Amino acid sequence: MRIVTLKEIQSMVSLSAATVAVRDAFIDYSQGLIEQPDPMQILFKDELGRLTGDCHVKSAQKKRHAYFVIKVASGFYNNAAAGLPVNNGLVLVMSSDNGQAVALLQDEGWLTQVRTAAAGALAASLRDVKKTDCLGVIGTGIQAYLQVKMITEKLSLKRVAVLGRSLEKSAAFCRKLNEELDVIAVPMDSARSVCHASQVVITVTPSERALIRAEDLPESLHIVAIGADSPGKLEIDPSVFHAAKIVVTDDHDQCLHHGDFGAAVRAKAIKEDADYAMGKVLSGQYSELDFNGTGISIVDLTGLGAQDLAVASLLVDQFSTSL
Amino acid sequence: MRIVTLKEIQSMVSLSAATVAVRDAFIDYSQGLIEQPDPMQILFKDELGRLTGDCHVKSAQKKRHAYFVIKVASGFYNNAAAGLPVNNGLVLVMSSDNGQAVALLQDEGWLTQVRTAAAGALAASLRDVKKTDCLGVIGTGIQAYLQVKMITEKLSLKRVAVLGRSLEKSAAFCRKLNEELDVIAVPMDSARSVCHASQVVITVTPSERALIRAEDLPESLHIVAIGADSPGKLEIDPSVFHAAKIVVTDDHDQCLHHGDFGAAVRAKAIKEDADYAMGKVLSGQYSELDFNGTGISIVDLTGLGAQDLAVASLLVDQFSTSL
Repeated sequence: MRIVTLKEIQSMVSLSAATVAVRDAFIDYSQGLIEQPDPMQILFKDELGRLTGDCHVKSAQKKRHAYFVIKVASGFYNNAAAGLPVNNGLVLVMSSDNGQAVALLQDEGWLTQVRTAAAGALAASLRDVKKTDCLGVIGTGIQAYLQVKMITEKLSLKRVAVLGRSLEKSAAFCRKLNEELDVIAVPMDSARSVCHASQVVITVTPSERALIRAEDLPESLHIVAIGADSPGKLEIDPSVFHAAKIVVTDDHDQCLHHGDFGAAVRAKAIKEDADYAMGKVLSGQYSELDFNGTGISIVDLTGLGAQDLAVASLLVDQFSTSL
Repeated sequence: MRIVTLKEIQSMVSLSAATVAVRDAFIDYSQGLIEQPDPMQILFKDELGRLTGDCHVKSAQKKRHAYFVIKVASGFYNNAAAGLPVNNGLVLVMSSDNGQAVALLQDEGWLTQVRTAAAGALAASLRDVKKTDCLGVIGTGIQAYLQVKMITEKLSLKRVAVLGRSLEKSAAFCRKLNEELDVIAVPMDSARSVCHASQVVITVTPSERALIRAEDLPESLHIVAIGADSPGKLEIDPSVFHAAKIVVTDDHDQCLHHGDFGAAVRAKAIKEDADYAMGKVLSGQYSELDFNGTGISIVDLTGLGAQDLAVASLLVDQFSTSL
């Protein structure tokens, strides 16, 4: 078994290559070429029953592919106070022929960050934007940063509107974006302000209550919901789904159980069969969908094992001859 | 992250210590001290749709325990022909406090073998036996060998009756047992012969059809069913459950979905609430149960993440001061 460190991984996987690989993975998945068992979820609570951390295990195998992956990703919310990274993880790459471990990718969660940001960038780019348009971002964490970086690069956007848990957090995040990326980021005071200032909004938080409601919406907005990936988490109020003209899910069943889409279906704000599959949207199978005209569109992303397989394959393909 | 090789693991974990740890784990689990998400199952098929391998991921966390485990175990049935071990696996030990990986136990499936054999030995010893009694074993693989070793040692049995897929396999397995263990093993020609020759029978196969039926049974027999641990596998016919006076499961829900017990419930051979919990049996909570008198008793084992946590903890506790 080859053990690959984060440093090696970062030198071998570019964000643009990851985006191409994740796009292919969505399409493969929608064509039934990739099998994924239900994700495993392990929750950690303190003595008062409050959630202190979670760990997700995802897996995917692709037909006639030499290996499959088992991906472990954790988030422990009190880590920051202890000076440790909140997110962590690793990827096991296993042979589909004999079940032996091929590689352990000690990515510390970085590959999950990248494949998630790649999905966000692909989802955001379903809407055509002008260079003067604005990207709204709710959330100020590492994933929010990576999303802003990849989306503004991919869509050539310069303007960013930020909403964090406090004005201080928003302002600090804007400073970081303005220093490190080629953007002009401005802190906002409400979800309504972000939605009205932007053409595309991404939500990237561990929130358990809705951050965007129907009354916050302008006439036209493209929303990419990334944070809610397990039962109990929520970013987009069911009323927003009720108002939407288009709803896309990365996986129907998973979004039904783990995402904002499911909360909207359970609230009867939207019909259970109202969503379009991300992979089929990306491969152009729904020519009738118009993400550009007036109205609200939502992409609900919960994260697929197929994405993990895609980015791990990028790596393993590079050293597979030496295995 | 500390990486521990199979050789180190084998030098640090004794079979007897594993049995004690697994017993405690069953009891902790039955008292609600251990949480396990549903196991993840990844199946591999050839182009004709035939099963060629499977990979299981199990996890467990214990209240106020410093770490949790994610255990990967695979079985690839064509490996033997290629000179590779059929079973493989590894265990990730993760911190319950911050989600970081503490250790990777490269046990190649050995810890799974040991914790499974420990459970078999605990289940077999629910019935009191005399030294002249006979252990029947259906199956001739590595797990069957380990079960025979641990059960005959724990129960001080000398006589073993063996049934494999062919008389050649049975005879070869008997030779191995007679050479390496302090037993007298004899090949049998049918499940009926094994059941009538034995007081305790264990089934340790990847069979997809019943190996023991009601018509094979003597008046009194204690059966430990180990092989069937995923949907589609079957060793014990529902008619045997119908005939049984006592049915024990390691986990009610898991046996219902993955074990022989579930097949019997679905065939309406037994009521869904007819089983007793292994952990409660081991802690003596069912004083009315008599495994020794006339009649058939069955223990259906599907394998718990709690067992993986128990044997991994045996190891990690030994080097935790140096972490």
